[in-house]
Amino acid sequence: MLNHKAYIMKLYDIPLSGNCYKIRLFLSLLGKDYEIMPINATAGENRTAAFLEINPRGQVPVLEDDGLIIWDSTAILMYLARRYGDEAWLPLDATGLAAVSQWLAVAQNEILYGLARARAMVLFKRAGDMQEYLTVGTGILEVMEKHLENREWLALERPTLADIACFPYVALAPDAGITLEHYPAIRAWIRRIKTLPGYTGMQGLN
Amino acid sequence: MLNHKAYIMKLYDIPLSGNCYKIRLFLSLLGKDYEIMPINATAGENRTAAFLEINPRGQVPVLEDDGLIIWDSTAILMYLARRYGDEAWLPLDATGLAAVSQWLAVAQNEILYGLARARAMVLFKRAGDMQEYLTVGTGILEVMEKHLENREWLALERPTLADIACFPYVALAPDAGITLEHYPAIRAWIRRIKTLPGYTGMQGLN
Repeated sequence: MLNHKAYIMKLYDIPLSGNCYKIRLFLSLLGKDYEIMPINATAGENRTAAFLEINPRGQVPVLEDDGLIIWDSTAILMYLARRYGDEAWLPLDATGLAAVSQWLAVAQNEILYGLARARAMVLFKRAGDMQEYLTVGTGILEVMEKHLENREWLALERPTLADIACFPYVALAPDAGITLEHYPAIRAWIRRIKTLPGYTGMQGLN
Repeated sequence: MLNHKAYIMKLYDIPLSGNCYKIRLFLSLLGKDYEIMPINATAGENRTAAFLEINPRGQVPVLEDDGLIIWDSTAILMYLARRYGDEAWLPLDATGLAAVSQWLAVAQNEILYGLARARAMVLFKRAGDMQEYLTVGTGILEVMEKHLENREWLALERPTLADIACFPYVALAPDAGITLEHYPAIRAWIRRIKTLPGYTGMQGLN
């Protein structure tokens, strides 16, 4: 009998990256198998000529699905939602898509250039302006706290890509020395995400 | 005869903002009428209690369409493409959506935190780290130049939201003292965008 090896997605991944974790989390929620291709950024493996052929931006995560390469964590989430999820995760009507997209933007802006940068300074000794990151990061936590005071999920009345995209660096804020003590609505939202079927954690976030 | 006032979209707008301009540009390409609600950020009009009710992030642009409020330039582009455009601007198949989303992410990351920040330091005396912005900004120009060497448009074989989102702060790079002289493929792409029916410019970009 011939051994037909089943095709499996590959995820170029850094274990401690919140942007990589959001893909692992979503793949787990979708129940999809995949293979991890570990990238050691400290050793510069994301800047080799071979890796820049895969992703000219030199960033991780990158997803490879049956020969198709997709870089950028938000683009990968959109791809996975359309290919393997359903409109529950990413609605296609104009109003629903806009509601989700707003929070995808927050994940790429204040959360990344506030909370994630502050965490990278602490964990990875990355250079930067901690005061600015804390101002931006706690500013968006205030916005999210107020927004979640009378809502269960960020964009719609159900979990969507918005929640998946914003979750990692918010839940990992304590890594940056930012306590979530004063944000009870955010903590309740974090607990709700942790009860989703297929939820998986990462180092610093169980 | 009763005077039925036609409903018209409202765009909360800052004339010199590239993020606002990308909405004006796309509305013009779509041939949609709208009313400008000018916001004077220098006078703090984006931080008033009234404006924060509209957009808790305190950012401009914001679109108001028949009572629906959408903040964030990328989310507004997605909304407009779905409501008033067609799949040419924003494809909905997984592969096409991923291709466009990758460049929407570039617009929100390297272009915003490189090129746009450098421009804001020069034009608006905003504080920041010019060296970092120039490194990030010229880094993504190199990536775009190579990518466009054998392509007419960023994501697909036709103009999409990817081009609209990336265009403003790339074309405005000279405002930040960044010459596009060494990027002939980018300059050709800029010229192509300027020939799109309905194209409109802004100060510093005609």
